[in-house]
Amino acid sequence: MTTGEHISHKFDEDVEEVTTSVLNMGGLVVQQIEKSVKALLAGDKEMAEEVIEDDLKVNTFDVDIDEMCNSIIVMRQPTATDLRLIMAIIKTTSDLERMGDEAKRIARQAIDISKRGAFPEQFDSIEQMSTRVIGMLNKALDAFARRDVDESFNVIQVDKKVDKDYENLVRQQITYMMEDPRKIPVAIDLLWSSRALERIGDRACNICEYVIYLVKGKDVRHVEVKELEKHL
Amino acid sequence: MTTGEHISHKFDEDVEEVTTSVLNMGGLVVQQIEKSVKALLAGDKEMAEEVIEDDLKVNTFDVDIDEMCNSIIVMRQPTATDLRLIMAIIKTTSDLERMGDEAKRIARQAIDISKRGAFPEQFDSIEQMSTRVIGMLNKALDAFARRDVDESFNVIQVDKKVDKDYENLVRQQITYMMEDPRKIPVAIDLLWSSRALERIGDRACNICEYVIYLVKGKDVRHVEVKELEKHL
Repeated sequence: MTTGEHISHKFDEDVEEVTTSVLNMGGLVVQQIEKSVKALLAGDKEMAEEVIEDDLKVNTFDVDIDEMCNSIIVMRQPTATDLRLIMAIIKTTSDLERMGDEAKRIARQAIDISKRGAFPEQFDSIEQMSTRVIGMLNKALDAFARRDVDESFNVIQVDKKVDKDYENLVRQQITYMMEDPRKIPVAIDLLWSSRALERIGDRACNICEYVIYLVKGKDVRHVEVKELEKHL
Repeated sequence: MTTGEHISHKFDEDVEEVTTSVLNMGGLVVQQIEKSVKALLAGDKEMAEEVIEDDLKVNTFDVDIDEMCNSIIVMRQPTATDLRLIMAIIKTTSDLERMGDEAKRIARQAIDISKRGAFPEQFDSIEQMSTRVIGMLNKALDAFARRDVDESFNVIQVDKKVDKDYENLVRQQITYMMEDPRKIPVAIDLLWSSRALERIGDRACNICEYVIYLVKGKDVRHVEVKELEKHL
């Protein structure tokens, strides 16, 4: 092996290791979101508190992966594509960490709602929305693991449906509030929760955009979906 | 000059250049936030649309600064503190970009409200909150420029007041909604806007945490304020 090959081999090993960490972190974040929504729907205060506590674990992943990436940069001095990969990993981790924060926010609303007692019909659309968003995140992680541009592109398209889910939910809650002011406080909690879900969907898209950037070398972070279709 | 000194000198020049870009971007973001709030308070649709358009400029800064940082890493191969500095710049830029997105969200609410016509008393507390948040961001940028730990710490403490502003505003809007259901749609818009401001405050704190990390070498991203006081 030449020195160049040796470094490149080591780099690949390092990347594999850090990718595994990112996927583990992603798995934990998916779990946090699932639990926070479950707690919201069931008014389960204990489960919500668990989510809030476990956010520490998400944060630890964030700091550790950052450290790993920094030392890869120092040790392996990656250039071009390799550096782009490390940057994508750093950004993905940061998005996952913020998704964890959103799960914590949903858990806080769950605790709030568990104290108030809600009208069951108010929860109608949030479950569907959460299923869609969690599906997006799972697929985004998959696309990240396999550097799959097609899958990335699919996820970005699903986000339009999530945005629609969200708009419908807001409209519906406003109707409930106008019908019966007693529904206002819980409606507000549900609006925050649905906003959190909508942001999680946005961040799943961010991850997919990094994948596209990695594979295609195009920075699509600030490009509309239609433009994106033309590019690819 | 030895080769080492030469590289280090070049690195300093690069950092100065990229720092200037970050501060310019920060100035633009401050302006975007100010304009979005002004548009909200005055029901000024044109100004709101300007903010939405100018978000492109914020995004361009984001992509450009990222590129600059990547090429600094490749050209200068920074290690330890120098690499930490570049990472802090990348993260700061990303936070500024997201703040720009929040300004865009406020601008969208402004357009929405301009169509509805609002009850003036509903705007009472959002102006105060926005002044505080914009003050935080200006100070955070200042702390970033001068790597000022004390100033960073001050900003993080102001965030507690912003959180209080925000809680009060939510409570107040809920009261308005309960009193008069006609106030509900605008109240919802204002809740979103105040949430956006609250998030901008959080992100100003993020910037300050990077500064503390840079100077003190402590990663304080996930540490509570009390813990932080102990550390410093």
